[in-house]
Amino acid sequence: MRMYDIIKKKRDGGELSTEEINFFISGVTDGSIPDYQISALLMAIYYRGMNVRETCDLTYAVRDSGEKLDFSAIDGIRVDKHSTGGVGDKTSLVVAPIVASFGVKVAKMSGRGLGHTGGTVDKLEAIEGFRTTLSEEEFIAQVNRIGLAIVGQSKQFAPADKKLYALRDVTATVDSMPLIAASIMGKKLAADDDCIVLDVKTGSGSFMKTAKESKELARLMVDIGKNAGKKMVALITNMDRPLGYAIGNSLEVIEAAETLKGRGPADLTEVCMTLAGYMLSLAGKGTPEACKELARRAVADGSALKKLLETVKAQGGNAALIEDPEKFPKAKYARAVKAPRSGYLTETDAEAYGLASLTLGAGRNTAEDSVDFSAGIVLKKKRGDYVSAGEEIATLYSNDASAFPAAEERLLAATQIGNEKPEDEPLIYGIVE
Amino acid sequence: MRMYDIIKKKRDGGELSTEEINFFISGVTDGSIPDYQISALLMAIYYRGMNVRETCDLTYAVRDSGEKLDFSAIDGIRVDKHSTGGVGDKTSLVVAPIVASFGVKVAKMSGRGLGHTGGTVDKLEAIEGFRTTLSEEEFIAQVNRIGLAIVGQSKQFAPADKKLYALRDVTATVDSMPLIAASIMGKKLAADDDCIVLDVKTGSGSFMKTAKESKELARLMVDIGKNAGKKMVALITNMDRPLGYAIGNSLEVIEAAETLKGRGPADLTEVCMTLAGYMLSLAGKGTPEACKELARRAVADGSALKKLLETVKAQGGNAALIEDPEKFPKAKYARAVKAPRSGYLTETDAEAYGLASLTLGAGRNTAEDSVDFSAGIVLKKKRGDYVSAGEEIATLYSNDASAFPAAEERLLAATQIGNEKPEDEPLIYGIVE
Repeated sequence: MRMYDIIKKKRDGGELSTEEINFFISGVTDGSIPDYQISALLMAIYYRGMNVRETCDLTYAVRDSGEKLDFSAIDGIRVDKHSTGGVGDKTSLVVAPIVASFGVKVAKMSGRGLGHTGGTVDKLEAIEGFRTTLSEEEFIAQVNRIGLAIVGQSKQFAPADKKLYALRDVTATVDSMPLIAASIMGKKLAADDDCIVLDVKTGSGSFMKTAKESKELARLMVDIGKNAGKKMVALITNMDRPLGYAIGNSLEVIEAAETLKGRGPADLTEVCMTLAGYMLSLAGKGTPEACKELARRAVADGSALKKLLETVKAQGGNAALIEDPEKFPKAKYARAVKAPRSGYLTETDAEAYGLASLTLGAGRNTAEDSVDFSAGIVLKKKRGDYVSAGEEIATLYSNDASAFPAAEERLLAATQIGNEKPEDEPLIYGIVE
Repeated sequence: MRMYDIIKKKRDGGELSTEEINFFISGVTDGSIPDYQISALLMAIYYRGMNVRETCDLTYAVRDSGEKLDFSAIDGIRVDKHSTGGVGDKTSLVVAPIVASFGVKVAKMSGRGLGHTGGTVDKLEAIEGFRTTLSEEEFIAQVNRIGLAIVGQSKQFAPADKKLYALRDVTATVDSMPLIAASIMGKKLAADDDCIVLDVKTGSGSFMKTAKESKELARLMVDIGKNAGKKMVALITNMDRPLGYAIGNSLEVIEAAETLKGRGPADLTEVCMTLAGYMLSLAGKGTPEACKELARRAVADGSALKKLLETVKAQGGNAALIEDPEKFPKAKYARAVKAPRSGYLTETDAEAYGLASLTLGAGRNTAEDSVDFSAGIVLKKKRGDYVSAGEEIATLYSNDASAFPAAEERLLAATQIGNEKPEDEPLIYGIVE
């Protein structure tokens, strides 16, 4: 088998065989296929696409390119939720404890933030003492004991994806449906869950800019997961605007805790209850609607918050911070961003808000950067709200006051104020089962 | 400027600016752009194409990536002919002396054979003593003295093309009109001619498989040359079949000498007279038709042959071989290939015949291989001829008798015999001016 022939076949719109895809991914993994041939094929896939069969094969080859988890020692049904990444997306911190409070197992491997998006591991590390690295034995024991553990990725999952992504990133081949699906699902399937709920973000702050594209991607990923024997559901949710009011690590932990106390923002609460409902439903706890009601009850009666506190303690974190968020270390500096005119907020662009938060120190430009846990943004107004000229629309937090002008400029440039109240946008565009 | 943005722009069908193309080629030349980004852009160009302006810019950037020739010390109009490469294509050996015999200057840099195609430099080196390497001073002095010199490429012409071609060859991006045009013309324009006649080969033995594609390529290359201030004409000629009867280095020199003696094959003679006619016409010697007549006269009166003998002598070659081709060293072994049945030859595939000749030792698989000058094929019958079962259709020559079975098999597989005489095919599909 020759890589040249594989490139030529895809270039001309042919369907690659399972053997050809395995040959490709094994050559990517062991370094025997040179980068210039990999990137030529990636560009051909960008133009010609892949059908579902090819995309499944690509995903499974990516999954099998590295280590995999074995959760067979965990008792009970294992459910995970995976977000394609957004701004202000702290849903994992809310839904995992809710679901675990019903005895469903959540053995969660999370990522770190990069660029304008945040990561659950960074958020958890904002909690003093919280250990995001556990041995495999500790991890499984904790899941068996309390139903929930959340750690960073320690194993070398899907090294082929790491290599492919690095090349796609510099060759303008990121925006390809089959390549995105294989990248996300290849890593996700390396974990050993029974059920997966995908949160496919749509809009400025995400891979997919339109609900139509997102549904297509969701359909593809759900099929890939089902084909691998998983129970799957995907939600398409709005990421044109930040989710909730808080952007930044400790700020988001505080908002997640508030949500578990029943005082969360309406949009965040709604997305979390829907996600948790589907997770519980896949785990066999009833219909999605009935399970959504269960989720609300777990918030109302405090059992979900209790599960979070239990988890924080189990992983060495200072649970007092969750009980009383006032105790979180605060950024040295704060600055109010004021409305330049009166009117309705018609646009609060998620990606730009994420980048403004990055500027304040809350995120990473490269994987090596360190993160300022207390930095970020708290919105005072959201899209659709009325503001008077000079009224505060957001507060910026940073330990580096020199970062404020650029962040403020970025935020204001991404904020539009109009005379007409904008039409409501859907929060959840659809469900793909 | 970032290579990423250039890839993305072309990926999305945008038109690259002159600055972007120069940035690209300068990065290819100095090695600052990694191969994986180059190949991603090549694949994007494969799909999206380039307009004439972009292709001109690419060509000139390729031309300017290395050394260039300066022919200002040559007195008179300098005319060159360039073939896109074929099987049995010995036209340069015929037309250059014809044109030079009229006082038009032919300062010819030629290439070596590779794969199924031959090269003029190899053919000349089949003449005992012929030096294909001259100093620039010797070269120019010889052109000024006798009107003609033919050497191999000594300078580092268009290194960007060398790099690009190596990548295209392994990433399935050779078959792209703008990339082919920029590669051919980028090298051609590094020489310093006033007029160029292109011989764009069409069919199995060439880049372009159809006359339509060849005309498109010819149009593009003529426009690129004109835009660079050259007088240009292109002929589209048939390369579905070998040209003439001889394939292989000394065998082709013999056939070229025969053609200059007025005893050449009809197809080769016609193509050579037409090419020489256009070369003389561009040099201001009259209409193409009148100049074609001049070319015939130069053969008839022996002045063209005299010019070839003069050139061979000037470059140290044994002119006696040209005068009496029987004196050429012969291959140790010969084998007759016989018709397996009676009928008309309906197919004699040029590429396969070229590869059969390569198998016999006449060509190169890689640039490092050495060539057996006396090896090759002499056809006894051509497409359209009637053969009886057992009649000889070709003679194979080699110094390695073990090469015969594979070469014979290859040749017979590419030869079809039918009951109906096939329709004649055009020898010259068209002229692009």
